[in-house]
Amino acid sequence: MTNTKTTKTTIGRTRWAIAEGWIPPQSHGPAPAMTSHETACLLNAGDDDAHVEIRVFFKDRDPAGPYHVVVPARRTLHLRFNDLKDPEPIPRGTDYSSVIESDVPIVVQHTRLDSRQSEEALLSTVAYSE
Amino acid sequence: MTNTKTTKTTIGRTRWAIAEGWIPPQSHGPAPAMTSHETACLLNAGDDDAHVEIRVFFKDRDPAGPYHVVVPARRTLHLRFNDLKDPEPIPRGTDYSSVIESDVPIVVQHTRLDSRQSEEALLSTVAYSE
Amino acid sequence: MTNTKTTKTTIGRTRWAIAEGWIPPQSHGPAPAMTSHETACLLNAGDDDAHVEIRVFFKDRDPAGPYHVVVPARRTLHLRFNDLKDPEPIPRGTDYSSVIESDVPIVVQHTRLDSRQSEEALLSTVAYSE
Amino acid sequence: MTNTKTTKTTIGRTRWAIAEGWIPPQSHGPAPAMTSHETACLLNAGDDDAHVEIRVFFKDRDPAGPYHVVVPARRTLHLRFNDLKDPEPIPRGTDYSSVIESDVPIVVQHTRLDSRQSEEALLSTVAYSE
Repeated sequence: MTNTKTTKTTIGRTRWAIAEGWIPPQSHGPAPAMTSHETACLLNAGDDDAHVEIRVFFKDRDPAGPYHVVVPARRTLHLRFNDLKDPEPIPRGTDYSSVIESDVPIVVQHTRLDSRQSEEALLSTVAYSE
Repeated sequence: MTNTKTTKTTIGRTRWAIAEGWIPPQSHGPAPAMTSHETACLLNAGDDDAHVEIRVFFKDRDPAGPYHVVVPARRTLHLRFNDLKDPEPIPRGTDYSSVIESDVPIVVQHTRLDSRQSEEALLSTVAYSE
Repeated sequence: MTNTKTTKTTIGRTRWAIAEGWIPPQSHGPAPAMTSHETACLLNAGDDDAHVEIRVFFKDRDPAGPYHVVVPARRTLHLRFNDLKDPEPIPRGTDYSSVIESDVPIVVQHTRLDSRQSEEALLSTVAYSE
Repeated sequence: MTNTKTTKTTIGRTRWAIAEGWIPPQSHGPAPAMTSHETACLLNAGDDDAHVEIRVFFKDRDPAGPYHVVVPARRTLHLRFNDLKDPEPIPRGTDYSSVIESDVPIVVQHTRLDSRQSEEALLSTVAYSE
């Protein structure tokens, strides 16, 4: 096999969308409502840090964000939407969608984790990219 | 990071298809047959309202629809196929597929919700687009 | 909305692949081993019948098939790999992959059904297309 | 149907990425932590062996690999990340992503298996390709 991989490490695109999103409402108690996490897995396989902006869309109000995240070069970040705080937390019990944009190519996969089972994923799909 | 995002908010495509679909039959009782929902999550991140047409295909009969849905600008709609009534409800206990077309770019994700667990999704995949 | 949809009903591609496949072994008894079904949902939204050929690939032996299936115009077929018999049944308890080719554009989604719960799907993903 | 399939058997691409990955930690005991497997299903439908290189990315350290795998011509390989040993095992209980590159076109699907239920898959998605 040739070593062409060492000269081209970047993979992915700069604009991604996840149409499905829902964080359990806090009022539903500890289980099962609070046992899962919406996650966007962000892979930056390239040699430059990725500066990522996330905008969140809702059914009945204006979009939230942008939220800012940095994925360092040659690193992956499994980002939980539950952890986004600035400029505002994402409302619980509310349908949302997200648009994820980066200044360098990244790969985005949408995963829901079940924290009851040692962080195992319940579902996963590569996000829409263009 | 530059602000190019504010000048291009649209993302997605105008023709989508979801080959898998099945709504539990009403005759199966309340659980578990009636505890899940087929959902098409429709994201319209652009500045113009999306006028969406949905056609539903079956194994043994002519297609149903078109159903008409509007997704306002910068909004998301998590549409349940169970809720489609006009021109006809989608038959229960029947395999179907759907084609979703919009006059502006949108992003479509196919998700099945489990209403027993506070609306958590059971599966999800970005739809086919072109 | 314009009526351009009525003049272009076809959607999809002619070459698809599903890299994951596994049918429970018959020797495992009725449950849970025999309670799920590998399914390829085939949507033919166009005006011509789709003549579909399926080839199945294994780890340790030559490919099986081609299997032949027809999806009529404007119909969908949720095809269970368990039901493929000619030229040979797909071996149980064996990793496989499939390549699905059609003479007209179709859309293929890979779904696993859980027959314990009224045909509800356990997982689903749009297949790879080109 | 024409026999054009017999003259073009290759399908897929040469560069793939799976942004989501997590292997249960060994310290969590036999169940449920050790009951699932991260799998990359690799289909090589072509007439030449595929020489595959896998690099694994983490949050807090440099990438691991490349790992080398061969998928023979007209064969599929359901590769468990748990089984990768050389140059180093993938750490347990750690978020990771993977980039999969091949010298001939292949198709990659990301699947998580639940070994409690006779190797049934829990989730599956076609990987990102370019």
